[in-house]
Amino acid sequence: MTIRLFELCGTDPQRIFSPFCWRIRMALAHKGLEFESVPWRFTQKDALAFAKHDKVPVLVDGDRVVVESFDIARYLDDAYPDAPLLMHGNPAPYVFVAAWTDSMFFGELSRLIVSDIPALLDAADRAYFVSSREARYGMTLEQVTAGRDARLPGFVQSLRPLRNALRGRDFLGGAAPDHADYIVFGGFMWARVVSPLALLPQDDPLHAWRERMLDLFGGMARSTPAAGG
Amino acid sequence: MTIRLFELCGTDPQRIFSPFCWRIRMALAHKGLEFESVPWRFTQKDALAFAKHDKVPVLVDGDRVVVESFDIARYLDDAYPDAPLLMHGNPAPYVFVAAWTDSMFFGELSRLIVSDIPALLDAADRAYFVSSREARYGMTLEQVTAGRDARLPGFVQSLRPLRNALRGRDFLGGAAPDHADYIVFGGFMWARVVSPLALLPQDDPLHAWRERMLDLFGGMARSTPAAGG
Repeated sequence: MTIRLFELCGTDPQRIFSPFCWRIRMALAHKGLEFESVPWRFTQKDALAFAKHDKVPVLVDGDRVVVESFDIARYLDDAYPDAPLLMHGNPAPYVFVAAWTDSMFFGELSRLIVSDIPALLDAADRAYFVSSREARYGMTLEQVTAGRDARLPGFVQSLRPLRNALRGRDFLGGAAPDHADYIVFGGFMWARVVSPLALLPQDDPLHAWRERMLDLFGGMARSTPAAGG
Repeated sequence: MTIRLFELCGTDPQRIFSPFCWRIRMALAHKGLEFESVPWRFTQKDALAFAKHDKVPVLVDGDRVVVESFDIARYLDDAYPDAPLLMHGNPAPYVFVAAWTDSMFFGELSRLIVSDIPALLDAADRAYFVSSREARYGMTLEQVTAGRDARLPGFVQSLRPLRNALRGRDFLGGAAPDHADYIVFGGFMWARVVSPLALLPQDDPLHAWRERMLDLFGGMARSTPAAGG
């Protein structure tokens, strides 16, 4: 029975842009598990009723339904222990990687790219996205990202923990990527799919790491349509 | 043969204040390994010549000499695999915890407490410390920490990744502490030993976590002389 993964996308089902869905795409590829992508859009809450959840990713594996990206990664290691491990039997420190990524990295990144997202969405999703995010920020999305070029150097600087953690190593996982890499890389795919903004200078070690991540699994991430030419 | 640990201290050898030394104190206790503390001060570089290194912690275990706190923790797991593990056979994600702690947490914390350190030191160490740190910051240490009360809420806010990672868990290691906890806790011991500044509000979940850390191993950390009454 093929694994099915409900993934957030734009009008174009190939434009998977949720960073949390990208974590699981990469995790499934890491484990060598085939899956069927089920395109999902913000306003299709009914399509997730079976999971008693209102957000993606949602993974369906036979009669198992698993929600929340961290729990899905843990499930994949538990259910497929003979396939390459994502968290090596000890998820605890990866919780911190996710906590930093979600609160600090994604918080800053969103303020650079959120106004680029509506253009990807169909009319219903666009209306939902704009009104819910404007309510969250208390301003228009254009106001959120205003002056982003000037804020970019500060953003690049805020990624110092990643840069330091990669010193002398190709991946956060060490010589090979693991779930720490996928947790962080999801954010870069989010940006790549929705925004033409160039986040990282060419000479940044994070740029080289991101290139390695784009190359994994036959260039799976690189072949996804990107916003910047 | 007893393990010896060279540790940075003030004039009073009980005032161990280096966050990196605290990581190893806690790690040794975690593994149930007895050790002899060898007090070391900044200007005693000669005493470390045998290790071909100029910083502590330095761990001596029989004829093995190990430097750098992360490498010491890794050594302890490798050399004593039957004692409780610090990093569960997979140090990679702990590198990120240390990278965030060293660059972001300690960077901010130092700007709150560095001017409190000279009072702990003897004359030679004080002269070395003040001149080297003033050169690093390009200003006096009093100027570095000026207005710290006003900066404290921003510091507390910058610890959000820790707070989020502890949601629903007693320790960063999960139900029990592991090296992720010791990596971070070292910073709180640094502050506790050198500065009267109260870093965390009583109702902060991090405050409760720090209390749990202070209680570990028979209150080992709590019984160390603190600067704040």
